[in-house]
Amino acid sequence: MKVPLPSPSGVSLEDLARLVGGEVQGNCPDLLFGVSSLGQAGKGQITFLTSPKYLPDLETTRASAVIVGRPVPPSAKPLLITANPYLAYARIAQFFSPPSVHPSGISPLARVGADCRIGEGVSIYPFVYLGDGVEVEKGVVLLPGVYVGDSVRIGEDSIVYPNVSLLFGTVIGKRVIIHSGSVIGSDGFGFAQEGMNQVKIPQTGLVQIDDDCEIGANNTIDRASLGRTWLKKGVKTDNQVHVGHNVEVGEHTLLIAQVGISGSVTIGKGVILAGQVGVIDHLSIGDEARVTGKSGVIQSIPAKAVVSGYPAMPHKTFLRSSALFQRLPELAKRIQTLENRILGLEAQLKKEKEDHGNES
Amino acid sequence: MKVPLPSPSGVSLEDLARLVGGEVQGNCPDLLFGVSSLGQAGKGQITFLTSPKYLPDLETTRASAVIVGRPVPPSAKPLLITANPYLAYARIAQFFSPPSVHPSGISPLARVGADCRIGEGVSIYPFVYLGDGVEVEKGVVLLPGVYVGDSVRIGEDSIVYPNVSLLFGTVIGKRVIIHSGSVIGSDGFGFAQEGMNQVKIPQTGLVQIDDDCEIGANNTIDRASLGRTWLKKGVKTDNQVHVGHNVEVGEHTLLIAQVGISGSVTIGKGVILAGQVGVIDHLSIGDEARVTGKSGVIQSIPAKAVVSGYPAMPHKTFLRSSALFQRLPELAKRIQTLENRILGLEAQLKKEKEDHGNES
Amino acid sequence: MKVPLPSPSGVSLEDLARLVGGEVQGNCPDLLFGVSSLGQAGKGQITFLTSPKYLPDLETTRASAVIVGRPVPPSAKPLLITANPYLAYARIAQFFSPPSVHPSGISPLARVGADCRIGEGVSIYPFVYLGDGVEVEKGVVLLPGVYVGDSVRIGEDSIVYPNVSLLFGTVIGKRVIIHSGSVIGSDGFGFAQEGMNQVKIPQTGLVQIDDDCEIGANNTIDRASLGRTWLKKGVKTDNQVHVGHNVEVGEHTLLIAQVGISGSVTIGKGVILAGQVGVIDHLSIGDEARVTGKSGVIQSIPAKAVVSGYPAMPHKTFLRSSALFQRLPELAKRIQTLENRILGLEAQLKKEKEDHGNES
Repeated sequence: MKVPLPSPSGVSLEDLARLVGGEVQGNCPDLLFGVSSLGQAGKGQITFLTSPKYLPDLETTRASAVIVGRPVPPSAKPLLITANPYLAYARIAQFFSPPSVHPSGISPLARVGADCRIGEGVSIYPFVYLGDGVEVEKGVVLLPGVYVGDSVRIGEDSIVYPNVSLLFGTVIGKRVIIHSGSVIGSDGFGFAQEGMNQVKIPQTGLVQIDDDCEIGANNTIDRASLGRTWLKKGVKTDNQVHVGHNVEVGEHTLLIAQVGISGSVTIGKGVILAGQVGVIDHLSIGDEARVTGKSGVIQSIPAKAVVSGYPAMPHKTFLRSSALFQRLPELAKRIQTLENRILGLEAQLKKEKEDHGNES
Repeated sequence: MKVPLPSPSGVSLEDLARLVGGEVQGNCPDLLFGVSSLGQAGKGQITFLTSPKYLPDLETTRASAVIVGRPVPPSAKPLLITANPYLAYARIAQFFSPPSVHPSGISPLARVGADCRIGEGVSIYPFVYLGDGVEVEKGVVLLPGVYVGDSVRIGEDSIVYPNVSLLFGTVIGKRVIIHSGSVIGSDGFGFAQEGMNQVKIPQTGLVQIDDDCEIGANNTIDRASLGRTWLKKGVKTDNQVHVGHNVEVGEHTLLIAQVGISGSVTIGKGVILAGQVGVIDHLSIGDEARVTGKSGVIQSIPAKAVVSGYPAMPHKTFLRSSALFQRLPELAKRIQTLENRILGLEAQLKKEKEDHGNES
Repeated sequence: MKVPLPSPSGVSLEDLARLVGGEVQGNCPDLLFGVSSLGQAGKGQITFLTSPKYLPDLETTRASAVIVGRPVPPSAKPLLITANPYLAYARIAQFFSPPSVHPSGISPLARVGADCRIGEGVSIYPFVYLGDGVEVEKGVVLLPGVYVGDSVRIGEDSIVYPNVSLLFGTVIGKRVIIHSGSVIGSDGFGFAQEGMNQVKIPQTGLVQIDDDCEIGANNTIDRASLGRTWLKKGVKTDNQVHVGHNVEVGEHTLLIAQVGISGSVTIGKGVILAGQVGVIDHLSIGDEARVTGKSGVIQSIPAKAVVSGYPAMPHKTFLRSSALFQRLPELAKRIQTLENRILGLEAQLKKEKEDHGNES
């Protein structure tokens, strides 16, 4: 299969179909130069339809072509038909997305410590600090204000955005992306109580982040007290995620914004923790489990479970109970009414009995 | 109207009354040099009373004068009477607050890229990085450790505090304040699922922050996947606020600390989202709506609505249902009692019927 | 009491027992060089048992010795017996933990302002910015990218990790640890409303952090509007904690990850606010109170109280009500059933009465 290359002269819809393994319907005379949304796309752009609710926009979009799924919606537009239009959109957007260009080399305004091993084609920007014994593999980009502590290792083609701190001994895999302001390898929160006073437990472990992970902005991922805090291959975290010491996160798990995970939690692979979820310490969350937004997890969750609420419960229970929560005033009133009615019945029966007694 | 200027020799209470459009009651012989709180103010300072609960402090304060609202509280102190004492306090505090002084010019320890346009009277501190094609209008202050990516534009008199990251293409209006550690223009969290694997959607849009916005410390405001993430004029965010990609926030809306807003949410003007609120993606929140602290918004909210809880519901419903939540054990017991009583009645009736049958 | 010193040739179990005031059981021929976990420890390491649930691991660990509490578990291993094994572990881990070594002096790549007073043995790393009139006492370590505003004071032996911002006038005590990315002294969130518009209240107070505090990564601690925001001796905060303006936090209080505290809250000593707790403004929380994770505090809490939920209620009430929340569908059904049964009874009685009437 011949894979097209982006070209200033544009590519054909057929080229894009070949790129994503899709099929063309209609004739698209325009060459394509980029992607855009249904509402904003113009001539020379391809757009995508991932939800039936945007069907009306399919008629009005000025895009030259549209990526759609099956069943194929009726349309006069040239269509690129594929099983997973959002995935095709991602591939095509990546195809058109210009690769970031970073000047290769080490800025004279950066500071590199002793015994560092720096690979080929690395970009080390001004105001980057590298401690001693740092290993930076080929193609790595370290943007301004990045702090790289002693003995840190960063795998090839990883990019670390501005003002990130990678503390002592952190191990970063290949093709990892770390967004601005994140802190990797800060001390775990560990103290032994001695009366009112706290005695600090030295945090002497490290953080390991495997290949193809992406860490959002302003995350905090604590080093282990002993051993390692470990994000496995392909984990993606959104912004402001907190990961405590000794946590393990399985392959391709997603941690959405503002999630907080306490120490020593073990999370399986393919899990999704939605925004603002909290997990208390030492729990385990099974593979492909889902925790909906804002939930508080206080006991371990089996694989593939879907839980919600605080404390987290099966999602269906949560839906039913939440609906009834809003009806609590009505339920309380119905209880009150029942009490009155039963009081009435009891009185009536008592009276009848008395009457009956009188009768006898 | 002659507006007073702060003076080392102090200003009179009458001057301050003129400044804020208020009225003086009593005679204040002291000249005034600054503001302070009721408890801490001394001679030469003016203080303010915004809540009746601090009325007792009005007698004991050592302030030279007090800003009050109507009805005017009984007091022997010189008073500055105004419709909105908190607003008057703000104006007077601003009046006394010394303007920050920043050395004008570009530090030799800063790094400025190619093709930048730098306005008059700009302060660029050490360890500031400016990429290529950056535009910085007059009077802008960039404090140490600020990262300004390629093609960023910053409008006049804006101030960016230390260690802020403004990624590629970010557009900042005039008189904008961005507090330390915030990240503007990090990639939105967008992936297409391909089996277990995630394929990154390139985030090629940008962030636009309009005039007079103030962004708290350690915020994260993601760039749009396509188009822009947009904070309109006068939006104020508290600390640790997260704003997802393609979100729009209307004029003068307030986002309190640790609020998280998922992608493609549209928020109207004059809205208040209180602390730790979460909003799921693609919703709209109408003008002047209020969401109380910790609420989870999972469906769109009409203008002027007040909602609470998770899932968010009308605030009054939440108050009633929350009160009953705490009484659930009692309600459950009442149901149990009803069941016992009804069982008693049923047994009694059955017996009577049998007796009756026997009688017949 | 002779206190042992760490030695490359190792120390005896008896030495460690003396260090922590414990007692040895069994004979430990190995010299000890460090600590590790039950599962990972090897020869020459000491480990610890703090929970009976790890008792089975006691038989299989390859550690040379184990710290245990009373009652002493049956074991063939050499044991170090102590009243508080976790505390003994902390002390022994500190004993073995190599002190961080920082080069003394001021990096030529740092920038030091006018009228600064810098103590003996200070380490000021590259890309550190010190404003004017800064006071840094002896033994302080300022890692790369730290911003120290004008008039900031930092007490002896404090360490400030990379990319921390200490804004104007901040006062830091002795032996304070501030982890990466934290912002101390950002403006409090204070505005007076003027119609739709907000008028900024100048935040002219400061932040004071007393001796032996530890501040986690990516915290935000706002300066007071007037007066000070004050963390007293020994306060520990986890990551991503937000502390609003004019908050006071008492001695040795713990604020766990992602806690948010609104302005003017007063917190006593020895308090624990668990992860993701939120507290609204102007409340007080009494000494040694506990707030469990994710709770929302909307009224003041007395000393030693334990509260949970949103709005926060006594923890026992929360447990009972939460259990019933999940049973709401069943309760609603029972109410429905009661209504049907009472309807049946009422009908039956009515009929009997009619029959009775007919009979008479």
